[in-house]
Amino acid sequence: MTDTLRVIPLGGVGEVGKNMTVYELGDDIVVVDAGLAFPRDEHLGVDLILPDMTYLADRKERVRAVILTHSHEDHVGALPYLLREVQVREVWGTKLTLGLAQSKLDEHGLLNSVELKEARPEDDPVDIGPFRVSFIRVAHSIPDAVAIVLESSAGRVLHTGDWKLDHTPVDGLRTDVGRLAEVGSQGVDLMLGDSTNAERPGTTGSERLVGEAFQQIIPRCEGRVLIACFASNVHRMQQAIDVASQVGRKVAVVGRSMRKNMNISRNLDYVTVPEEILIRPNQLADFRPHEVLILCTGSQGEPMSALTRVAYGDHPSVTVERGDTVILSARPVPGNELRVHDTINELTKNGAEVLHQEIAPVHVSGHGHAEELRTMLALVRPKAMMPVHGEFRMLAAHGRLAQDSGVPADSIFLPENGSVLELSPRGVRMVDRVEAGVTYVDGLGVGDVRDVALRDRRTLSEDGVLIIVATIGGSNGAAVAAPELIVRGLSEPGPLLDEMRGEADRVLRDLLGQNIREIKLLQEHLHDAVGQLVYDRTGRRPMILPVIVEV
Amino acid sequence: MTDTLRVIPLGGVGEVGKNMTVYELGDDIVVVDAGLAFPRDEHLGVDLILPDMTYLADRKERVRAVILTHSHEDHVGALPYLLREVQVREVWGTKLTLGLAQSKLDEHGLLNSVELKEARPEDDPVDIGPFRVSFIRVAHSIPDAVAIVLESSAGRVLHTGDWKLDHTPVDGLRTDVGRLAEVGSQGVDLMLGDSTNAERPGTTGSERLVGEAFQQIIPRCEGRVLIACFASNVHRMQQAIDVASQVGRKVAVVGRSMRKNMNISRNLDYVTVPEEILIRPNQLADFRPHEVLILCTGSQGEPMSALTRVAYGDHPSVTVERGDTVILSARPVPGNELRVHDTINELTKNGAEVLHQEIAPVHVSGHGHAEELRTMLALVRPKAMMPVHGEFRMLAAHGRLAQDSGVPADSIFLPENGSVLELSPRGVRMVDRVEAGVTYVDGLGVGDVRDVALRDRRTLSEDGVLIIVATIGGSNGAAVAAPELIVRGLSEPGPLLDEMRGEADRVLRDLLGQNIREIKLLQEHLHDAVGQLVYDRTGRRPMILPVIVEV
Repeated sequence: MTDTLRVIPLGGVGEVGKNMTVYELGDDIVVVDAGLAFPRDEHLGVDLILPDMTYLADRKERVRAVILTHSHEDHVGALPYLLREVQVREVWGTKLTLGLAQSKLDEHGLLNSVELKEARPEDDPVDIGPFRVSFIRVAHSIPDAVAIVLESSAGRVLHTGDWKLDHTPVDGLRTDVGRLAEVGSQGVDLMLGDSTNAERPGTTGSERLVGEAFQQIIPRCEGRVLIACFASNVHRMQQAIDVASQVGRKVAVVGRSMRKNMNISRNLDYVTVPEEILIRPNQLADFRPHEVLILCTGSQGEPMSALTRVAYGDHPSVTVERGDTVILSARPVPGNELRVHDTINELTKNGAEVLHQEIAPVHVSGHGHAEELRTMLALVRPKAMMPVHGEFRMLAAHGRLAQDSGVPADSIFLPENGSVLELSPRGVRMVDRVEAGVTYVDGLGVGDVRDVALRDRRTLSEDGVLIIVATIGGSNGAAVAAPELIVRGLSEPGPLLDEMRGEADRVLRDLLGQNIREIKLLQEHLHDAVGQLVYDRTGRRPMILPVIVEV
Repeated sequence: MTDTLRVIPLGGVGEVGKNMTVYELGDDIVVVDAGLAFPRDEHLGVDLILPDMTYLADRKERVRAVILTHSHEDHVGALPYLLREVQVREVWGTKLTLGLAQSKLDEHGLLNSVELKEARPEDDPVDIGPFRVSFIRVAHSIPDAVAIVLESSAGRVLHTGDWKLDHTPVDGLRTDVGRLAEVGSQGVDLMLGDSTNAERPGTTGSERLVGEAFQQIIPRCEGRVLIACFASNVHRMQQAIDVASQVGRKVAVVGRSMRKNMNISRNLDYVTVPEEILIRPNQLADFRPHEVLILCTGSQGEPMSALTRVAYGDHPSVTVERGDTVILSARPVPGNELRVHDTINELTKNGAEVLHQEIAPVHVSGHGHAEELRTMLALVRPKAMMPVHGEFRMLAAHGRLAQDSGVPADSIFLPENGSVLELSPRGVRMVDRVEAGVTYVDGLGVGDVRDVALRDRRTLSEDGVLIIVATIGGSNGAAVAAPELIVRGLSEPGPLLDEMRGEADRVLRDLLGQNIREIKLLQEHLHDAVGQLVYDRTGRRPMILPVIVEV
């Protein structure tokens, strides 16, 4: 039996998003997390981004289980796509994580394709494939998050998942520093650690601080109160509901994902909401502004979300007006800043006072800062360390923290997606790289859009398209009529259009006069001549598509 | 003679960028600032954005002067375009502002079209058109910035320009609180004030703090030091040069705009650089890493800038490697975050340590925070107030500060671009709105690109384009051949392409069989039928362009 464990991050390193790590021992594979990423502006038209799962698809009968650390989209969002590619036997997660995953699998019609097994941090270790696995509670911005210990013949690995060192979490379930220290004392051969906030000094605030801010703000509000946060931030919703209850406001939950999460969390007892306090969004009209508190989606300025629709006066049941207060209880994910600012401006134009994280203490991060990462390193004392979950600068900063805390420099591995780290009783080394990249979800297609399509979209987006339709006679090869031109997205061409048509006609007649009739050649000459003319006149390079019709 | 002054912001309110304010008294117009804005991601392919200057173009012989408060692009960048549209007699600005404007006008071949007149804050007021104008020094992130007092029969107006309350500016030229208080005592009927940081509590740090950070950081650096900042931030460059001089490093200035600004500032004595310390970028190879300090452009992650090229290993004379330190001495302008993060990641991959404003005190803002704005309001005690220079949320916050400081609520006017405020001895009122919007500079064209072109580009960018070329017989109207299809930027269509061709053929034959031969009708049916098919199969809506060729 082999004692060499291959650890391969297929996503989540060199980026924030689509976390997925392969643990492969002999013929058995366990996957930790299956997340997605959201497209950037340059991913024109792409809806979602998944890890390239080719490595797993090529070994589809060997995947024993997927273990989920927690239920954020960048950790579970690719699960339905993974289950379609690969025969997974078990999905492990804590109660809430499974509850939310269940609903997601149900939407994709995949509920019966896999066995869901509950991870219980308080229980003894369980056997998953060739691994003895235990779960350790960690605090994060969604309840029921865990770190994972994987023991095997290769050694002991700690995978932290996303975590912070919140000593006063809303549910009282702290990051279990005692268990972490215990595992550290047993000896951790390799640690994979969350690097998101490795660059930020000090510690992040407790989630409870946000509740304290709500306590300060809400009682003095005279109109409606709207609070937008991530739909998964169940404890933040709980804290808002608690304050609403104290000041006698009814609570409406607005936005599909937030309503879904709230229902699941209530059913599983992660949120306590007095029945009489909750109202449906369409009941808001029955109450006066100061009698309600609205929890809603849209903290990232997403175009179709509840808060965005409210801001632009386009929501069926929620409006804001002078005297209302909107609390944006989130930090814009990089890339969303302008959309969030637009939302704030529109809400302000409607007369609302908008409190956001730049000007009020209404948000804390779910990821530990540098001092917390140092604490983790001190507890675990790993022999080797691979920073994961972050852009390269964050991984590098985490690596520096590890070195400061005593991990030897040659045992700190900064990976790329696809890097293969081998752990065995003889030590840890980075060996090679496997195929890893991105899979685009575009409309109904998964993986259909390739980079060439995106490159075309970029050209089209910047300079538009110009189509030249030329008709030539079949027998004698003469041009039948002057070429037809169609432009879209180009600076208004006015007389330039005539000039281009004339140029195309001239080029065509010239070539046909020389008895050049090869379609490809005609297209190439038309493309180059008209392209040069457009560039000379406008400084732009639209996509030029010559179409030759032979009749 | 009229005593009613019309004050019209044509740009810069409800946005950050393209500041331009019209002061119109009777037949005379004075314009304060002529700035541009940079396109957002949704402005596909647009290079620059200017204010819509129709109002001025319609009154082109009445513009007596343009007065510039300082030389940032969002205050002077539209000047060449304005001068081409409008017959301006004089451009006023302080010495450095004029020096930089001169170079800009020279590049546009406009140097002889206007008289440049120096604004001297220490001198007596000057007459510009119907206004008696005085200039008051303010501190900002570029030297030689001024506030402007415009006195006329209508009353006294203070236009703050961009400013902060830096009590220890690098050049010793503080915001002249004494003069501001004096003007306040004379009575200010209307104040237009910079609102950029009205939401931020407290005060912004002195520019000198950045110099102190340089003093801390640079002496302990063992490799190259690169400092990226705005090319106009002359005092920051001065502070870096001073430290370089102390520690015996040579200084290379890299990046066209920074070299230009440095030359002009040196010639006009705004920067003092010992001759022996400066080297040219191509001399860097002659020195060892610890012997040089490189000042460069690219603090916003601009694609073709010096630092970006360095980060991607694509600069002819600058490289970074392990041991080097890069100081990003700027805050990303909203919308540039991802590009800046990419640059940091690439530099880190090269082994450099990157210090940026999130993790080190290497940047301060040039715009006063709330407490500074309160100080200005207390000094000036305006009877009426129009917050300018900022998104709506910033204007609203500034309005609240004004109200707190005693300006009556009905004398605080939150404008939109094009709002007309009338000031006369009888008071201030918002009267109507004139045409104001955006003019796109797109390649060589100014104002050619309209919203319809941008809308087309957006469709093209998201879903690509599908062109259907159908040839029909001229005499009998039969389809001559199966339609030809060209796709670009669409998810790879594979068999879908055949299906679409079949559908187009079917629709066409069907219509021709019914003797329907009207081109528009044929196009419409092809568009709808194929569009529906693509949507059903892919969930996308590419732009569909049916071309009918009659032979």
